[in-house]
Amino acid sequence: MNNFVFNNPTKIIFGKDTENKVGEEVVKYSKKILLVYGGGSIKRTGLYDRIISSLKESQIEFIELAGVKPNPRLSLVYEGIKICKENALEFILAVGGGSVIDTAKAIAIGVPYNGDVWDFYTGKAIPQAALPIGTVLTIPAAGSESSDSSVITNEDGWYKRGTGSELIYPKFSILNPIIASTIPKYHVASGIADIMAHLMERYFTNTKNVELTDRLIEATMKTIINHAPAVISNPDDYEAWSQLMWSGTIAHNNLFSCGRVGDWASHNIEHELSGIYDVPHGAGLAVVFPAWMKYVYKHDLNRFVQFAVRVWNVEEDFFNLEKTALEGIRKLEEFFISIGLGVHLEDLGIKDDRLEEMADKATNSDNHKLGNFVKLDKRDVYNILKLAK
Amino acid sequence: MNNFVFNNPTKIIFGKDTENKVGEEVVKYSKKILLVYGGGSIKRTGLYDRIISSLKESQIEFIELAGVKPNPRLSLVYEGIKICKENALEFILAVGGGSVIDTAKAIAIGVPYNGDVWDFYTGKAIPQAALPIGTVLTIPAAGSESSDSSVITNEDGWYKRGTGSELIYPKFSILNPIIASTIPKYHVASGIADIMAHLMERYFTNTKNVELTDRLIEATMKTIINHAPAVISNPDDYEAWSQLMWSGTIAHNNLFSCGRVGDWASHNIEHELSGIYDVPHGAGLAVVFPAWMKYVYKHDLNRFVQFAVRVWNVEEDFFNLEKTALEGIRKLEEFFISIGLGVHLEDLGIKDDRLEEMADKATNSDNHKLGNFVKLDKRDVYNILKLAK
Repeated sequence: MNNFVFNNPTKIIFGKDTENKVGEEVVKYSKKILLVYGGGSIKRTGLYDRIISSLKESQIEFIELAGVKPNPRLSLVYEGIKICKENALEFILAVGGGSVIDTAKAIAIGVPYNGDVWDFYTGKAIPQAALPIGTVLTIPAAGSESSDSSVITNEDGWYKRGTGSELIYPKFSILNPIIASTIPKYHVASGIADIMAHLMERYFTNTKNVELTDRLIEATMKTIINHAPAVISNPDDYEAWSQLMWSGTIAHNNLFSCGRVGDWASHNIEHELSGIYDVPHGAGLAVVFPAWMKYVYKHDLNRFVQFAVRVWNVEEDFFNLEKTALEGIRKLEEFFISIGLGVHLEDLGIKDDRLEEMADKATNSDNHKLGNFVKLDKRDVYNILKLAK
Repeated sequence: MNNFVFNNPTKIIFGKDTENKVGEEVVKYSKKILLVYGGGSIKRTGLYDRIISSLKESQIEFIELAGVKPNPRLSLVYEGIKICKENALEFILAVGGGSVIDTAKAIAIGVPYNGDVWDFYTGKAIPQAALPIGTVLTIPAAGSESSDSSVITNEDGWYKRGTGSELIYPKFSILNPIIASTIPKYHVASGIADIMAHLMERYFTNTKNVELTDRLIEATMKTIINHAPAVISNPDDYEAWSQLMWSGTIAHNNLFSCGRVGDWASHNIEHELSGIYDVPHGAGLAVVFPAWMKYVYKHDLNRFVQFAVRVWNVEEDFFNLEKTALEGIRKLEEFFISIGLGVHLEDLGIKDDRLEEMADKATNSDNHKLGNFVKLDKRDVYNILKLAK
């Protein structure tokens, strides 16, 4: 177990009707805010009206920035920064999923910065200040509601890149599971894959003596696996949604990173898929992760056996650990398929004519190695994409 | 699952040599502080010198308040409040275990309050302000390093009572597992029982649909059970200590309370044991908890079966759930005994001549009901103490 610092200050307000408290939370920070959201879904469901009404009750002025798309675009971030600067806005409220929240975070660090906010995503600069942000979450997936990270896509070359900073932990996040119940099934399933991936990225580590975090991660994966079918088949199942939504937050609030080094190669590889083909991030992960596993499992067979036995209830074949490990990977694929996702590139409509290009971009065109569990070069990434065909 | 708010702002700094960072953390808040600790053990081990050296490096002035005892006394709290007021101290650093930290918390809320700080412990008043505190933890046990609670014993009548407030979450807590390795085995074992009790108080709930927190609690209990023998038999096993120490913090930072109602009757009953007989709190819990379980398990047999099967690897007797449940309780007792604790009052040198008095005090002499899983009146408490003989 490694030394670590853990300090997640986000206030979680969880449960029924909690969105009506947004005004009284925002007003602790400012009465002049930017309200960021995506398409019209929050208007169709009535969530928009409830948010506006709560903001008005607390006499909060707001300017709206709508139109955030999945795989959120840098151009909209620039627009948000401009609006905040011109109107001296002091707080950003994100109402939506990971894309909306990540956009809000990007704007938050962009406003006090004199250079190009993209610098933070290329590693050219490190955020030194940020506007405070708050969120009302509409889908369990990205975990951005309680994370220190933000992922943005630059349309100029379709680079999808992330940044991280303690400054962008939301001040508060409001989680009402029932809000998520109107999302189309395919997006719910993608969200579930994203949450599973956040857990697996942390799980597959070379750090020794991490039993507590191993078990906490397994506990969360089992809970998701048990409740995913109900969430998919019955969107009104509040209890199943609440288990899933809280799991999604826990999965990515850094608690399960404490004292261990995560991998994150699959996330990086997937960013090329969704960056170029604009597929849902989670749907891309459902394809990349099993392929990654098949490519690396021999690196630490015991860990993959533990994953199979403890998470998937695979009966261990004590005389054939490899078979046991592979059965765990097969169970993961089976799970993704059962909730309506594909596990092959072709299921996403991606042909194999740009695999070289993706492998090249993922490794920054200079053979930058990806991942920590196993260090992957461009050739490895290409091979994993081939396995994902 | 119930609605909840979760917001634990304590910064955890975990690992080897982290105590040397105490000065740079404290100086963010003040350069004029109260330094609270217990007996001479931190001087014997050299920890005191390292703390002083780090404080001096950051040019922090401090006044010392030594002599905190287990089951910390109100009189010392009064003394600390007086020192802080007279010297306009602005920050309290606790170096020690739960007793030292709880004393620091009591002083922190006592300083800005014009009345008697004991009012907060009797429920007569609610804290409105507090000095900031920080901690350097020396034993995994009370979880006070990342909790919002404090328990103090009033020598006038030997009442042991607790209070809670968001204001007393420590600003930071420094956890170096190796610091705990010099503690006598019996105190280590008591600490382990206290941690297990924090988990079990939360685990035994009537709230439905709490699979995620159930599993997280089970994960933490299993980790403790697996590492306790190493910690007891080999104090230098850093990895085992690190698993135990981080488990102790996680067990009581309120994450596992999210969305569920805990019980806490066993804690309340035990407070009468340690209040009157001055036994270590954890040692008292090892006696009270199994007795409480035997008294209430029929209230929710399935939950006790789950506890037995998932936490203790008891093979379920599908045709005799009661046997399965009781085997789980027996395994818990066996575990406590294996680490050197007793599970009967007589093991603590407590005779049965004051059981009535303890039952009376625990129920506030007015038949105030204890607990949530099962509501216990004075007669129930007496019966549980009888079972613990």
